[in-house]
Amino acid sequence: MTPKSEQRRRELCDAAIELLAADGARGLTHLRVDRRAGFADGTTSFYYQTRAALLRGAMDRVIELDVADFTAALDATGNGEVDSLLSTLATQAMRTAVEPERSRAQARFELMMIASRDRQLGKGFDGLMDRFVALGEAAVAQVQPAGTSDPELIKEQAFAVVTFLGGFLFRLAYGLTDLDSAKSLEKYLHSVIAGVAADHQVTGNSSIP
Amino acid sequence: MTPKSEQRRRELCDAAIELLAADGARGLTHLRVDRRAGFADGTTSFYYQTRAALLRGAMDRVIELDVADFTAALDATGNGEVDSLLSTLATQAMRTAVEPERSRAQARFELMMIASRDRQLGKGFDGLMDRFVALGEAAVAQVQPAGTSDPELIKEQAFAVVTFLGGFLFRLAYGLTDLDSAKSLEKYLHSVIAGVAADHQVTGNSSIP
Repeated sequence: MTPKSEQRRRELCDAAIELLAADGARGLTHLRVDRRAGFADGTTSFYYQTRAALLRGAMDRVIELDVADFTAALDATGNGEVDSLLSTLATQAMRTAVEPERSRAQARFELMMIASRDRQLGKGFDGLMDRFVALGEAAVAQVQPAGTSDPELIKEQAFAVVTFLGGFLFRLAYGLTDLDSAKSLEKYLHSVIAGVAADHQVTGNSSIP
Repeated sequence: MTPKSEQRRRELCDAAIELLAADGARGLTHLRVDRRAGFADGTTSFYYQTRAALLRGAMDRVIELDVADFTAALDATGNGEVDSLLSTLATQAMRTAVEPERSRAQARFELMMIASRDRQLGKGFDGLMDRFVALGEAAVAQVQPAGTSDPELIKEQAFAVVTFLGGFLFRLAYGLTDLDSAKSLEKYLHSVIAGVAADHQVTGNSSIP
């Protein structure tokens, strides 16, 4: 692919994401993408010949942007720019309340619902969710008490964090604004992590079935 | 409405829910509802003249079934049939992995995405979510340590439970099966509640800003 055609594909996919967010899967057509992106009629059909290809393009673009966020989060923490991965995750999650992140989140949920019925698309999201879980594990590992590291516990905590964040992101994409700051969200994430640790310990130590 | 027309509307809405689950919003047309429900072509258009009316009917039916579940959960706990509201919530949530609850959950998420762009539909879901939060508060209130009751804490715990459960239900609707039993889910809910309580107390007692 030439740089120009790569750039064009990116713009078409960004327009597709905006349409998915604004009107759902029903609002996504090749012609509407042409017009939204400001290209001649037929451009989208040239680059993405089928609806499946267009959906795949939009999904790949969402995933590319998500992975860029994940990488930025890891880098910022690695550089010591921010306190913790958890606080970066909270800050990134709160951005879902505003554009363009809100549209991306809405498009992501639309595409995930399509992917739940389409294994080809599903594979893309499976990979994204594996990365999200890995990021959750890295964030959780950072906040373990000094000298402790129980891989089983970290898995449980990461599952809880990822599930809670998924629910929170859906609420933001839907339009609810429950929390006023990333600090509040980070506090909830800490609570979830601490609560799982406390119960894990209780169960681990208990001899009563 | 005659009982017969009420029954017919219910069957049409159930067919609409199945179509939303199977094919998304794009798969929902009046004619496809007729055929899915086994009625003569034109029946759905007779009862629901517009697409907006059909979507509203499907949403009302999802909410009716959800509220019936909420009521059953409250009744079962009131009767002493089950240990706690939290365990009933966990059991009900796990049923989302199987039909017909999975289709209802998929249709609910499809309709919520539409509702995020359509305030008329949105009002219906706002009411449902208020009831869900109230149910969460009732479940959380039951598990407070004896003699304690902090309304602010209960609100925070209910928010955390509802957000976690929302994320978990989305994962089930998407097709992920992370947990093997309602007991496991209930344990996570307990952890979330306990973690929020622990952090709430820390903040409450701390004199350090």
